[in-house]
Amino acid sequence: MTAPTHSPGSGAAPAAKPGLDHLRVQIDAIDQQLVDLLAQRRRVVQQVTEIKQQHDLPTFHPAREENLISARRAQAMQAGLDPDYVEDLFRTMLRHSRVGQLDTLGRRGARPGAKVLIVGGLGNMGRFLTTWFRQSDYDVRILDRDDWPQVQSLAAGVDLCILAVPIDITPEIAAQIAPHLPPACVLADITSLKHKPLEAMLASHRGPVVGLHPLFGPATTTMDKQIVVVSPGREMDKCQWLLDQLTLWGNVLVETPAAEHDEIMGIVQALRHFATFTFGQFLYSRGVPILRTLELSSPIYRLELAMVGRLFAQDPDLYAEIVFATPERQALLKDFIQSLQQNLSLVERGDKAEFIARFRKVAEWFGPFSEQAMRESTFLVEKLVHRF
Amino acid sequence: MTAPTHSPGSGAAPAAKPGLDHLRVQIDAIDQQLVDLLAQRRRVVQQVTEIKQQHDLPTFHPAREENLISARRAQAMQAGLDPDYVEDLFRTMLRHSRVGQLDTLGRRGARPGAKVLIVGGLGNMGRFLTTWFRQSDYDVRILDRDDWPQVQSLAAGVDLCILAVPIDITPEIAAQIAPHLPPACVLADITSLKHKPLEAMLASHRGPVVGLHPLFGPATTTMDKQIVVVSPGREMDKCQWLLDQLTLWGNVLVETPAAEHDEIMGIVQALRHFATFTFGQFLYSRGVPILRTLELSSPIYRLELAMVGRLFAQDPDLYAEIVFATPERQALLKDFIQSLQQNLSLVERGDKAEFIARFRKVAEWFGPFSEQAMRESTFLVEKLVHRF
Repeated sequence: MTAPTHSPGSGAAPAAKPGLDHLRVQIDAIDQQLVDLLAQRRRVVQQVTEIKQQHDLPTFHPAREENLISARRAQAMQAGLDPDYVEDLFRTMLRHSRVGQLDTLGRRGARPGAKVLIVGGLGNMGRFLTTWFRQSDYDVRILDRDDWPQVQSLAAGVDLCILAVPIDITPEIAAQIAPHLPPACVLADITSLKHKPLEAMLASHRGPVVGLHPLFGPATTTMDKQIVVVSPGREMDKCQWLLDQLTLWGNVLVETPAAEHDEIMGIVQALRHFATFTFGQFLYSRGVPILRTLELSSPIYRLELAMVGRLFAQDPDLYAEIVFATPERQALLKDFIQSLQQNLSLVERGDKAEFIARFRKVAEWFGPFSEQAMRESTFLVEKLVHRF
Repeated sequence: MTAPTHSPGSGAAPAAKPGLDHLRVQIDAIDQQLVDLLAQRRRVVQQVTEIKQQHDLPTFHPAREENLISARRAQAMQAGLDPDYVEDLFRTMLRHSRVGQLDTLGRRGARPGAKVLIVGGLGNMGRFLTTWFRQSDYDVRILDRDDWPQVQSLAAGVDLCILAVPIDITPEIAAQIAPHLPPACVLADITSLKHKPLEAMLASHRGPVVGLHPLFGPATTTMDKQIVVVSPGREMDKCQWLLDQLTLWGNVLVETPAAEHDEIMGIVQALRHFATFTFGQFLYSRGVPILRTLELSSPIYRLELAMVGRLFAQDPDLYAEIVFATPERQALLKDFIQSLQQNLSLVERGDKAEFIARFRKVAEWFGPFSEQAMRESTFLVEKLVHRF
């Protein structure tokens, strides 16, 4: 059984009582009015967007949003409604209206008409960038594997050159393209490593250089609030229009020196992806019945398994690149496996007390983050449970 | 910088344009009407709940919900609104109203007045069960460590005895309590292992026996859609009222033989918890700056780190119990570490091609689940990005 066959109250007639029908008609009428109001709201928001566009005002107004939420929470409490519930609904509405505004505003170019050369423009990220730059009225040229004979004409007079090629060949492509670029051209890359590519770009190009690492893939449909790490290279003031363009598209920029970026990404990307990859492979090698484990699992495991499945829906080359990137990453993976082995020997010795002592030490170190993590993940689990 | 200091359009005056103020007043008026309608809706739903209660009708009516959603989607499309957005809002409203109805209906007892003995009733899960059974008008008695001298009188005439004690002592407590129970009493446990506890309960008690594994902790505030694994023991027809009670509280029951349950939980709980524990400890031992990694991370990592933090916000004893439970689990952990080591040697040899080949094999095995996982996790990432 997936539910007991005899459920309490199942003896009652399933037909609705007359009073119930009447109340359902009332609910339907209320729901219809709700959707009418949503449509009205949208029309007013569209007028707001037009005015903002005419006067060059920013889309997102955090203080205004928080005031609006506070007012609705207060009204909810007075009306005997759960304020968290009302806030939840309004946050969904605000997000939707923000995305709608970005759809309109985000197309605007920070420097429309500027010439952009995308090296590797036929790859997934290359095509993605091409679409966004073209939507914002840039003059986009693509240089892929077979276009090197035309490099001279493609690179002539470009204002920005973006390297969208695999990590391992980024340094050599930087060296190949740089001599063809005008000295004032901005040279940028978008790989998930920053130290080596920046070094190569700085060595081969004399003008402005910036390293970018967009923390999202080409399947993304909105740039709203998506993070891009920015590792400064040279003449950052001359790179500013590119950063402005990313901000206009909705990206959040986080400036980080290349070395710090690479160290953190070793853990955030290489180690996590390696462990997740191995876990997926382990399930495969044991023939674990995935769907059955989901039936028997808490939503947290469903979430964890979704992360594993997600990895395998993506490009293996990209993951290989990230995991194999540097010798430091190998050392990191090795250290992690050693930690697992040390904990395994605790389990083999049956030393529960030591396991608990280590647990408490780490819990203390995590401090308030644990509680926050608990709240965030509980919030998401709620969403997951009630969506699927 | 966490955002570029010069943002485009920041030259414009931050003061709102007059037209904007007028439109914002309109938006506020619409929002106020929306909350009024939500309050009205709640009042009507409360009347529905009362009628359902009087006539013993089920709370949840999937067909009615789907009809309602379809009607609102159709209206949304006609009004030029995104139907997915409107569906999202209405699903949130329906969930909220369902939970509200369960709060009222869920208190109903399947067998009110029945005598329930909770062994380990002062522990976290023991207290949790006591609250729920008492709310549904059961006569609840508690037997904790110090109450064994009174066991005779506490166990006299009980209809249900639930063992809510740690896994490792569950078999011996079953043997201690069983001789005091009436032969018709239902004996149940709630540990996260099922084979051994069931064996012990069946060996020591002659009457109805059932193994339960609730996949949620004592911090849960609603049982709505929470999963309970049911491993049948003996005379399941006589256990049915207990299962009915769980269903009334909103639980979803999944019947699973004890052996299958234990095998799946080895992976779903023991291996996952062990790996997550070790990852948290690894971050601690390297002094990784957690908050900085979050600033530099995609929402997916934020989600992964939330799972790690979440573990350390919980009870170490419970995790130790799960990880240390059986020799089979030790073997499982060992096998997993071996897989990691094999993959590490791929990385050390620089054998990307083999990594990619293995990746593709697993991806194929995951099949359509990967795509589903991608959709689910993307949905959650959206929620996470826009909430925090």
